Amino acid sequence: VPGSAGSLFDVHNLPYGVFSHAGGGRRVGVAIGPSVLDLTGACATEHSPHADLFTAGTLNPLLAAGPETWRAQRAEVTGWFTDPGAADRLARHLVPRADVELHLPFTVADYVDFYASEQHATNLGRLLRPGQQPLPAAWRHLPIGYHGRAGTVVVSGSEVPRPRGQRWAGEPGGSVVLAPTARLDIEAEVGFVVGTPSQRGRSVPLAGFADHVFGTVLVNDWSARDIQAFEYVPLGPFLGKSFATSVSPWVVPLAALEHARVRPPARDPRPLPYLDDAEAQPWGLDLRLEVRVNGSLLSRPPFAGLYWTPAQMLAHLTVNGASLRTGDLFASGTVSGPGREEVGSLAELSWGGSRPVPMPDGGKLSFLRDGDEVVVSGTFPGPGGALLGLGEVRGTVTPATR
Amino acid sequence: VPGSAGSLFDVHNLPYGVFSHAGGGRRVGVAIGPSVLDLTGACATEHSPHADLFTAGTLNPLLAAGPETWRAQRAEVTGWFTDPGAADRLARHLVPRADVELHLPFTVADYVDFYASEQHATNLGRLLRPGQQPLPAAWRHLPIGYHGRAGTVVVSGSEVPRPRGQRWAGEPGGSVVLAPTARLDIEAEVGFVVGTPSQRGRSVPLAGFADHVFGTVLVNDWSARDIQAFEYVPLGPFLGKSFATSVSPWVVPLAALEHARVRPPARDPRPLPYLDDAEAQPWGLDLRLEVRVNGSLLSRPPFAGLYWTPAQMLAHLTVNGASLRTGDLFASGTVSGPGREEVGSLAELSWGGSRPVPMPDGGKLSFLRDGDEVVVSGTFPGPGGALLGLGEVRGTVTPATR
Repeated sequence: VPGSAGSLFDVHNLPYGVFSHAGGGRRVGVAIGPSVLDLTGACATEHSPHADLFTAGTLNPLLAAGPETWRAQRAEVTGWFTDPGAADRLARHLVPRADVELHLPFTVADYVDFYASEQHATNLGRLLRPGQQPLPAAWRHLPIGYHGRAGTVVVSGSEVPRPRGQRWAGEPGGSVVLAPTARLDIEAEVGFVVGTPSQRGRSVPLAGFADHVFGTVLVNDWSARDIQAFEYVPLGPFLGKSFATSVSPWVVPLAALEHARVRPPARDPRPLPYLDDAEAQPWGLDLRLEVRVNGSLLSRPPFAGLYWTPAQMLAHLTVNGASLRTGDLFASGTVSGPGREEVGSLAELSWGGSRPVPMPDGGKLSFLRDGDEVVVSGTFPGPGGALLGLGEVRGTVTPATR
Repeated sequence: VPGSAGSLFDVHNLPYGVFSHAGGGRRVGVAIGPSVLDLTGACATEHSPHADLFTAGTLNPLLAAGPETWRAQRAEVTGWFTDPGAADRLARHLVPRADVELHLPFTVADYVDFYASEQHATNLGRLLRPGQQPLPAAWRHLPIGYHGRAGTVVVSGSEVPRPRGQRWAGEPGGSVVLAPTARLDIEAEVGFVVGTPSQRGRSVPLAGFADHVFGTVLVNDWSARDIQAFEYVPLGPFLGKSFATSVSPWVVPLAALEHARVRPPARDPRPLPYLDDAEAQPWGLDLRLEVRVNGSLLSRPPFAGLYWTPAQMLAHLTVNGASLRTGDLFASGTVSGPGREEVGSLAELSWGGSRPVPMPDGGKLSFLRDGDEVVVSGTFPGPGGALLGLGEVRGTVTPATR
C-alpha cells in the first residue's frame, strides 16, 4: 500500500478499528499507512473464512473468536498486503484514513483501572496525603486497581464537558460547594482489551495473558482532582473519574508488540507465586507515550518502567475467581517515569498546581482550561529497528453544562 | 389467578422477570401469586402493541422503552387480570412458578454500589478504622459510592465459590499470603434498575428519578472482608467484592411501590440544592428486609431509615455529567438499622467475628462457612394494608476453586 512502508502503521502493525465513510454504516478496518483497509468489504469479496466476524460494525465478534482466529486473520491480512496480485484486487477496499470517521472500536464490558507506576503512585501519595507514607501498604504486594465507569468510555475526538461536583469551599471540614472542577487533569495510560472470556470461579494465570487479551489502546482517564480528593475516602474515586475516559480508535494486537517486550523492573519483595514472572517471559512493554496540550509536547511517559506488567494485572484481577467478558478493558493507571518530563498527569507536572508549566502562548498551565486540546500518542519498536505506532487519543475540554 | 389475592405477588405488585420452562428458551414473565404469566406468549396471542418488547429473552427492550410504555404495559397486564374474559383466554399462558428456571432479568450495564446507611457506615468505620472518626468527612454531604463489577452480577440461586486473595499473614505490615477468604460476608441491599438512558454531560435532577428508574431488586453484595481490608487504600474495594453480586430475579416496578413511599430521616447539614428533597415528594421507601442463613432468621434490616434515598443516589451519580445506560444497576449499600438485629452484614452482626452468633445447629456463625445458604427477602406495604413482596435473593457458598 503506497505510503505504508516505514510508517507507524506499516505491515508489521495492522491495528483494527471501526470506521464509517461517506455517510455509510460502521465497518471494521485495518489501518495501513495513510489508508484503511475495509475488512468488512475485503473479507466478503475474498470469500474469507472470517467474513462473518466483520459484519457487526464492532470488533466484538473478532475479540470473542479467540487467539487461533486472531492469528489466522492477521496472517490473512499480512498475506494480502505481501501478495502483489491480492493488493491489486484489494485496492478498491482502501479508503484514505483522512476521510473516515472512527468509532468506539468495541463495546466495553467492565472497565478496570490499575495504579501500576511506582513514580505516579508515589507522586500522588505525596500530593494527596502529605506527611504520610506515599505508597499504600499493599502497593508492592499486588497491583492496586478499581472499577471505573464503562458507559462513559468514549472514542478519541469526543468532547469532554467540564464536570461539576462537590468540594470543600475553603478549608477541609468547612462548608462545601457544587461547582465545575477547578482541577481538571489527564492521565496518560495504556489499556488492554480482553477478547476471550473466562469462567466465574477460575483464575487466569500469568501464562494465560495472550490467550485472553487481544490488544492494546491508549487511554486518557480524565480526572477532576478536587472532586476526587473530596469523595475518595473510603471507597475510592467515583465522580472524579466517571464523567469520561477516552480511548484511541485503533486496537494494536499483542502480536504486533513482540519486539516491544522487555524485562520489567526488579520487585522487592518478590511477589507471591501467582504474580511472580521471574521465571516466565514477562510482559514488560517498551511503549513510549507523548502528551501534548494545544500542540505543545509536555511529557514523554515511558511504559517500560512500570512496576506491574499487564499480565500481572490480569492474573490479579481474576485470582479471586472474577470472570472476564469479551470487551473488558483494563488500563495501567497513569504512566509516569522518574523524570519531571516523564509524568503522565498535570497534577504531577505542575506539582498540584504549585509549579505551573509555561506554554508557548504565554499562558501557564496548572490544570486544564476550557478549550484545551489534549493528545496522548504512542510508539513502540517493531522488527529491524522500525518504529510502529499506537495512534493517538485526543480530546477537547468544553465548558460545564447542566 | 388462583392463589394470587392476598399473596406477596398479588395484582398490585406485578414484577417482571425472565424465565425458561420445560427446556424452552428464555421468555419474559410477570409473577402473579404462585404462577408466572408468560408475557412473550400472552402479548403475541392478545395482539398487544407491546409484543415486540418481549421477544428478546431479557427485560432490556422494556427497560429502554421508557416510562410511558412502562405505565401502559402495566395497565395492560392489570386489565387482563381484572377482566374475567381475558383471564380465561390467558390461562394457557400461566406456568407454575415452582416449575420455571429464573434467569438474570436484564443485561447489567454499569453496576454502582452506594454506602447510604448511616448505621452501616458507622459500624464499618469502627471495625475497619478503630480509633478514628467512623464516618468519612464527606459522608453527610453526598452519597458515597463506587463502581463494582457488572460482569459478576448473577441471578439468585447461583453458587458463590469462596474467593481467594491476598491478606496479611499475621500483623499488618508483615508478610502476606494468598488464601481463600476467612471472612466471607454478605451485604443485604436494595438495587435500582435504570431503564431510560441519559446524555453524557447532562445531570438527572431529583425529580427525574421515576423517568429513568424502572424498578427495584434485592441485592446480596458478597464481600471478603480480609481481602477488602488489605487492598482498599486508596482506590476502594476491588477483589474483596468483584467475585460475585447476587440479585433477585423479579424486578418490582416503581409503580408498585407508591404505598411504600415514606419521608427519609432529617439530614444535618442540609444537602446542597441538587440533593435537597425537603420540598419534593421524597423517595424514602418502607422496604423491610430479612436475612436468613441456613433457614435461621438473623436480621430484619429496615430500608426506610436510610440517610440517602435512591433519587438522591441517582442525582449524585449524574451530577458530574456521567451518562446512564439501559441496564445500569445502582444499589443502596448494606441496609443496617440501629438495632443489633437490624444489620445487613455478618461483620456487624458478629462485630468483626468477636461476638459469634449461636445457630440452631449448635454451631456459631461469625463469617460464612462452605455450604452455608444465605437468603435475603423483602416485603413492602401495598394498597389497603396489603403486604407485597420483593421476592428473594439466594446463594450458597461452595469451596474455593482454582
